Amino acid sequence: MKKPKRGWYAMPGGKMERGESIKESVIREVKEETGLQIKEPKLQGAFTILVKNKEEIIQEWMMFTFFCSQFDGKLFKKSDEGELEWVPVSEVLNKPMAEGDRSIYKHILENDQMIYGTFTYTEDYHLLNVRLDPPSDSKP
Amino acid sequence: MKKPKRGWYAMPGGKMERGESIKESVIREVKEETGLQIKEPKLQGAFTILVKNKEEIIQEWMMFTFFCSQFDGKLFKKSDEGELEWVPVSEVLNKPMAEGDRSIYKHILENDQMIYGTFTYTEDYHLLNVRLDPPSDSKP
Repeated sequence: MKKPKRGWYAMPGGKMERGESIKESVIREVKEETGLQIKEPKLQGAFTILVKNKEEIIQEWMMFTFFCSQFDGKLFKKSDEGELEWVPVSEVLNKPMAEGDRSIYKHILENDQMIYGTFTYTEDYHLLNVRLDPPSDSKP
Repeated sequence: MKKPKRGWYAMPGGKMERGESIKESVIREVKEETGLQIKEPKLQGAFTILVKNKEEIIQEWMMFTFFCSQFDGKLFKKSDEGELEWVPVSEVLNKPMAEGDRSIYKHILENDQMIYGTFTYTEDYHLLNVRLDPPSDSKP
């Protein structure tokens, strides 16, 4: 897979529906939230997310990040998730996002191999801890 | 990644522990169940598994399949999971395994790209339905 040096990015996300594969989920979610029909998204990240209240883990889920450079359709101006925009590659890392996501996007924009990891958040999504493999050098 | 044309395979599996990434889980599980310290396992399959009682879905989980050709250590003769053996590549698909696993192993032994899918089983693990992407031509 070749990563474009220039280009624009949309960053939708969502929840799997019953019986979907993760690839089916990402195709459906992107279609619902952006209007774009993506083609052959490639899995690039697999993460375990923990939410802690003091020492107790109160939630745990998995998150998958896909890369895709081909699609049909035109980006919605708005969806239920908010306003949508294409962002030049050089601007992606300056956009507001969950603290832990920045190191994921940095890896995926610069690498072709998978990244794995675990993020631990407080209940109000303050990032407590990150373990990434390969390790990230991205500091917000 | 180059797939060896000849070689031997072990096929352990297991359950993620709290806060592990899927890569950490596979490394730990293989170590516990085989004695082998695997190096840089590569994710090759991501699956959604449904268990149905008549029309009702009573369980749902995810399963990840990794490929790895480098390791340190020596295979246990036995573990809590049963007897262990190295199996020539040409024999892997003839071994007893869950019905759905055969098409996964066939894909992974012959391809470098990811495979995604959903398997639906009855409560006694009779395979009701399979959707694979790319589709599998493996019929047990």
